[in-house]
Amino acid sequence: MTDKLIIFDTTLRDGEQSPGASMTKDEKLRIARQLERLKVDVIEAGFAASSNGDFECVQTIARAIKDSTVCSLSRANDRDIARAGEALKDAARGRIHTFIATSPLHMEKKLRMTPDEVFEQSRQAVRFARNLVDDVEYSCEDGYRSEPDFLCRVIEEVIKQGASTINVPDTVGYAIPELYGAFIKNLRERIPNSDKAVWSVHCHNDLGMAVANSLAGVKIGGARQIECTINGLGERAGNCSLEEVVMAIKTRKDYFGLEVGIDARHIVAASRMVSQTTGFVVQPNKAVVGANAFAHASGIHQDGVLKARDTYEIMRAEDVGWSANKIVLGKLSGRTAFKQRLQELGVVMESEAETIAAFNRFKDLADKKADIFDEDILALVADQSQHSHQEQFGFVSLAQRSETGERPRAEIVFTVGGQEVRGESEGNGPVDASLKAIESHVKSGAEMVLYSVNAISGSTESQGEVTVRLQNHGRVVNGVGADPDIVVASAKAYLSALNKLHDNTDRVAAQG
Amino acid sequence: MTDKLIIFDTTLRDGEQSPGASMTKDEKLRIARQLERLKVDVIEAGFAASSNGDFECVQTIARAIKDSTVCSLSRANDRDIARAGEALKDAARGRIHTFIATSPLHMEKKLRMTPDEVFEQSRQAVRFARNLVDDVEYSCEDGYRSEPDFLCRVIEEVIKQGASTINVPDTVGYAIPELYGAFIKNLRERIPNSDKAVWSVHCHNDLGMAVANSLAGVKIGGARQIECTINGLGERAGNCSLEEVVMAIKTRKDYFGLEVGIDARHIVAASRMVSQTTGFVVQPNKAVVGANAFAHASGIHQDGVLKARDTYEIMRAEDVGWSANKIVLGKLSGRTAFKQRLQELGVVMESEAETIAAFNRFKDLADKKADIFDEDILALVADQSQHSHQEQFGFVSLAQRSETGERPRAEIVFTVGGQEVRGESEGNGPVDASLKAIESHVKSGAEMVLYSVNAISGSTESQGEVTVRLQNHGRVVNGVGADPDIVVASAKAYLSALNKLHDNTDRVAAQG
Repeated sequence: MTDKLIIFDTTLRDGEQSPGASMTKDEKLRIARQLERLKVDVIEAGFAASSNGDFECVQTIARAIKDSTVCSLSRANDRDIARAGEALKDAARGRIHTFIATSPLHMEKKLRMTPDEVFEQSRQAVRFARNLVDDVEYSCEDGYRSEPDFLCRVIEEVIKQGASTINVPDTVGYAIPELYGAFIKNLRERIPNSDKAVWSVHCHNDLGMAVANSLAGVKIGGARQIECTINGLGERAGNCSLEEVVMAIKTRKDYFGLEVGIDARHIVAASRMVSQTTGFVVQPNKAVVGANAFAHASGIHQDGVLKARDTYEIMRAEDVGWSANKIVLGKLSGRTAFKQRLQELGVVMESEAETIAAFNRFKDLADKKADIFDEDILALVADQSQHSHQEQFGFVSLAQRSETGERPRAEIVFTVGGQEVRGESEGNGPVDASLKAIESHVKSGAEMVLYSVNAISGSTESQGEVTVRLQNHGRVVNGVGADPDIVVASAKAYLSALNKLHDNTDRVAAQG
Repeated sequence: MTDKLIIFDTTLRDGEQSPGASMTKDEKLRIARQLERLKVDVIEAGFAASSNGDFECVQTIARAIKDSTVCSLSRANDRDIARAGEALKDAARGRIHTFIATSPLHMEKKLRMTPDEVFEQSRQAVRFARNLVDDVEYSCEDGYRSEPDFLCRVIEEVIKQGASTINVPDTVGYAIPELYGAFIKNLRERIPNSDKAVWSVHCHNDLGMAVANSLAGVKIGGARQIECTINGLGERAGNCSLEEVVMAIKTRKDYFGLEVGIDARHIVAASRMVSQTTGFVVQPNKAVVGANAFAHASGIHQDGVLKARDTYEIMRAEDVGWSANKIVLGKLSGRTAFKQRLQELGVVMESEAETIAAFNRFKDLADKKADIFDEDILALVADQSQHSHQEQFGFVSLAQRSETGERPRAEIVFTVGGQEVRGESEGNGPVDASLKAIESHVKSGAEMVLYSVNAISGSTESQGEVTVRLQNHGRVVNGVGADPDIVVASAKAYLSALNKLHDNTDRVAAQG
């Protein structure tokens, strides 16, 4: 047991399993780089065997990331494990994370396997994985609802086979802190070789207790790895939130007495990046990263905070990356000020050419609107990341009108494979008409499953940022577009989503 | 100690203290009725002494609600308590909730009082309150950071004076479940007359542990009242979420062994109502009430759920009010189907006239769009509640256009005190131009602090629902507007916000 707590981020794997949160390879790489900046210890980059697309994502991230361990999930079979090993071949540090369900319910109803079969498969999986990499994690899916006797037998064996991390997930979010902590403590005490592995917790938030359960697994149970995601993203009610669990460990160091390597100043930027990429909003009253997390409305509180900040604040907003004061940039701001602002916002450009391109877009925007807010800058950087490659569909121009008593109409010009085309349509509103105008030409047949507008800096003078989520032939993609004109932003988002549908990747999804 | 757990909802008091979440009297009454439908035991309706507006809110709710106890907060002084008593005079069951800070930091820095002064003021406050009502709750603000010896002395005394509920809040969200539980257990064991009062917990979510802390206060500490809010609304990261804590008690009845009176089937409707009224979105991965809380994306999970639902689900979506299947209404649906749908959505109209008006709006909408989703119905009901009184500003018609390379323009006709006026303007986008067109005539000078579009049923064919938050002379109001045309919805929302600014109410805010 060490005093270091390992932070294992699974935003790109379990987080991506949220319905609608699927990400492209470029988006995943961008987020992985932000996780590396955060100094996350382990990045679970995907589930290599689930699809060629996921394999490529894991491989790309394994090649790009140097400071964090890169991990791939795999079921407990040779084919999955071999794919994971192959995807991680070039990693500075690679980990194979193999799992199988161990609860009576899951073994009987889902796997249709006997406990002995699960035991044997666990043993073989870990042994096989250890032939490929030194760092092997074993998860007993639905562990918290498994029989302790059976778990002890399986875990003792997989540690013998060389599993160096043992994860006992609360897959369905059913645990209570003191019970979950005691459950893990009991396993660790009963298993003779338990000290040969790092114990890990992986909690879901169905009853709102993922953070507390994870911490009880650490404090009471003796676990030294927490699996978590940015913004608590994840299937159903999501996973333990990285930002909450890390700030709890830091704020209550008096109690936990543990070191975490996380550089918390990049948390807000990471939260925004994940929210922007997935189209999953962060509610204002979300701990640490919500817009109101450090805001005080009531007179009594404001008065208290002015007299002594710690009357109502246990953390400092600056420490998690909220800008102390928002410097508003404008037309006359130079490239140095712009670059400095990007840095403060935690945005790192991949190349100088990208910085110059972003600066040029910034100047274009500054011509259209007087004050450029931080949110505008983040939006234009995100918008640019959509355009970094050769694209099938590109926005050229839009004209739309609506008038009470008439059907709204839109006419759009856009490129398809470099050729300009024109579409027009009526619709229920100007946005609907604009998207139908695109569809009148493209005929993708995609179903729109989400249309969301992210409020940017609270005023209609700022840019609007729109996320459009399309579903076609079982694939789900998110497109993002930003523009001071919300109708144009919507059209850009729709074209961006079509571009992603056009990029051919196949995928199936994984475990929770 | 009883086996009944009291659910004390403070959405209308602590929840309303979220920056930007202030509500009108009508909105509060509507939410109070929904809380009564939920069978909440105690509704904290406001802080009567804080303003005339808040006084009226408490009074109105006290007169309307029959099945729940209605409570008013008050500082620990005679004036506040007398106002609370006055506001609660007509309640079927009224409670005065008086508070004073007891932590060294708060006493010294905020109150600038000695412990003896705080002791004396607590004693007198409870005694005075008991002259007005039988049901008195005493809160030691920042209780978890207070000295146990001092707390014991104060609490023993206020119980002697007749306080029947003792609340020990974690005001700053600093607690850890096992420590908070032990803290309350210790107080209850040391205070000789502790069994003469019901003990209560009130936890904030700054480290993401409000639910777990509350439950530890109950299970380990022996508390039998939980203070909570719908959607976890509240200052900073908010309060303990009612929906999460209630479903934890129900789902883990095997462990807690407690009865709660809540009719959980109204939870989703309550969540939507609060979100819609405040403009505070609920993130998709929010437990219980988030759009994804019961959704499964991954193949393995879907497969598991099809084979046996409880492989991945510990609660049933229907049990918290998610409709099992969304019946889509259309042009040909009659009033009976419409009324039935309203009922299933948990919407109760105040009168038959209101039902008819809503049905007529529904028919108007059905003429414009083919399928009417649940969200459309909720939006038109909410939109109507904005129009139930004589209003200063009313929407008549709008014409707008934007075209790449030109400045967007809008022309709007609206009523001011019954008179039609016309405004026009350019803007950064069509929404901006439309709101500037209104402002060109009204000249309110209000600052827009939030502009948000609530995605409705995921498609641009449906209605858009827009929330506009305006701030003027220290007052903050939310306006909501719905229309298939997002620009029109924005204009309606802006006019609705202006109407609220026009209604003259004054307010100051309270404790957390």
